[in-house]
Amino acid sequence: MEVIIKENERIDIVPGSEYKIIQDKSGFCYGTDAVLLAGFCDIKKNSRIVDLGTGTGIIPLILNSRFNIDKIYGIEIQNEVAEMAKRSVMLNGLDNKVEILNIDLKKISSVLNQEKFDVVTSNPPYMNSGGGILNTSDRLAISRHEIACSLEDVIKTASYLLKDGGRFFLIHRPHRLVDIVWLLRKYGMEPKIVRFVQPKMEESPNLLLLKSIKGARPELKFQKPLCVYGEDGKYTDEIYKIYGMDKEN
Amino acid sequence: MEVIIKENERIDIVPGSEYKIIQDKSGFCYGTDAVLLAGFCDIKKNSRIVDLGTGTGIIPLILNSRFNIDKIYGIEIQNEVAEMAKRSVMLNGLDNKVEILNIDLKKISSVLNQEKFDVVTSNPPYMNSGGGILNTSDRLAISRHEIACSLEDVIKTASYLLKDGGRFFLIHRPHRLVDIVWLLRKYGMEPKIVRFVQPKMEESPNLLLLKSIKGARPELKFQKPLCVYGEDGKYTDEIYKIYGMDKEN
Repeated sequence: MEVIIKENERIDIVPGSEYKIIQDKSGFCYGTDAVLLAGFCDIKKNSRIVDLGTGTGIIPLILNSRFNIDKIYGIEIQNEVAEMAKRSVMLNGLDNKVEILNIDLKKISSVLNQEKFDVVTSNPPYMNSGGGILNTSDRLAISRHEIACSLEDVIKTASYLLKDGGRFFLIHRPHRLVDIVWLLRKYGMEPKIVRFVQPKMEESPNLLLLKSIKGARPELKFQKPLCVYGEDGKYTDEIYKIYGMDKEN
Repeated sequence: MEVIIKENERIDIVPGSEYKIIQDKSGFCYGTDAVLLAGFCDIKKNSRIVDLGTGTGIIPLILNSRFNIDKIYGIEIQNEVAEMAKRSVMLNGLDNKVEILNIDLKKISSVLNQEKFDVVTSNPPYMNSGGGILNTSDRLAISRHEIACSLEDVIKTASYLLKDGGRFFLIHRPHRLVDIVWLLRKYGMEPKIVRFVQPKMEESPNLLLLKSIKGARPELKFQKPLCVYGEDGKYTDEIYKIYGMDKEN
């Protein structure tokens, strides 16, 4: 199959796999956070999955490389970005496994049925919109700020999609923890496992990984913190493992 | 002033101070958790404070030794325990600063006015009552299980007592985090600073320290984790400092 690569694009390797991914040289690339989220997910065989705000499609590609999945839908509101992700899917011949849907997640009910999915993942925009200094047509701004959708939209949509007992994997900023758990409960999902990501061992966390289960009983388990850098200033073994690399290489 | 010390009691030193505290040899003693909570509190001059479930009165005594306080009320439902705490207050000549009230915190409105306090502290029972295997007349059981009061009772009472902008300092188990922040918001208090306590650096937290502010805007700050033991298996310098001890001694 022939896939067009545009002048402003390059082809990279999907971490820990042999898949390829198209990225925009001028800046629209997947981040560490998406890789950490994919590394945090435990997915049962033949799961049906939706990734909300899929961007380049990195999360569907990583999950598909690591698990035996029935189908993953990647939802992306930005036309150009969704189109690039679609070409990455074609490039890997994954058309029967991964489908990129270029829609607003607030309108998900027009394309996907309620309570039909086992897993929802999301690495959503972290920053509250407010302030008005943003160029709201900017692709990076839309992926980083709550312009096109709020945290509540993401959580509400996850709850709409999930079966009872379905799992929602989210990465976000720790300072939003209270909003996150408040909204999860509001929409019938219970936070079950949390893991904080710290730049270094003795520092405060700057990211949180959270697994919630729809309709579960309350009890939050804490995994030990994930440290990105060791005392030697290099990535920790665990980060290398998540990226599918031996430390020797 | 003459203070009676009973046969089953002993006199200990309040950590980091010259105050004395009466404890029950047969088991009703203050725990590390109360000392950690007191160490986490930052108290403004001339604050009016209530400690919910004060037990031996350890938290009022530590706070009074460290800060210039207007008045601290220690609320304790158990008659014998409250009576022992009252004698500790007398033993230190603190009758004008610390008052132990032997009442059920659910009936606090009969003794203390609404929204008149700057700070509320609590090291409440951690364990859900359910199960029915407990001897509910047991003093230790009442201090450890939610028999006499639920987490919701504690949070509701804190909110009743606090002025707008007043601070609530709580120590609890991390697995209850979702219940805690849900209830705090329900009663108009916003979690602002959290610190997880880990037995060791690379382990999951087993306690959380949480500062909430009544009527504040959402944003949760994370302090770096507090580790109890170092790699050498000894207490960390920070724990020694919280206990008011030099590591050399």
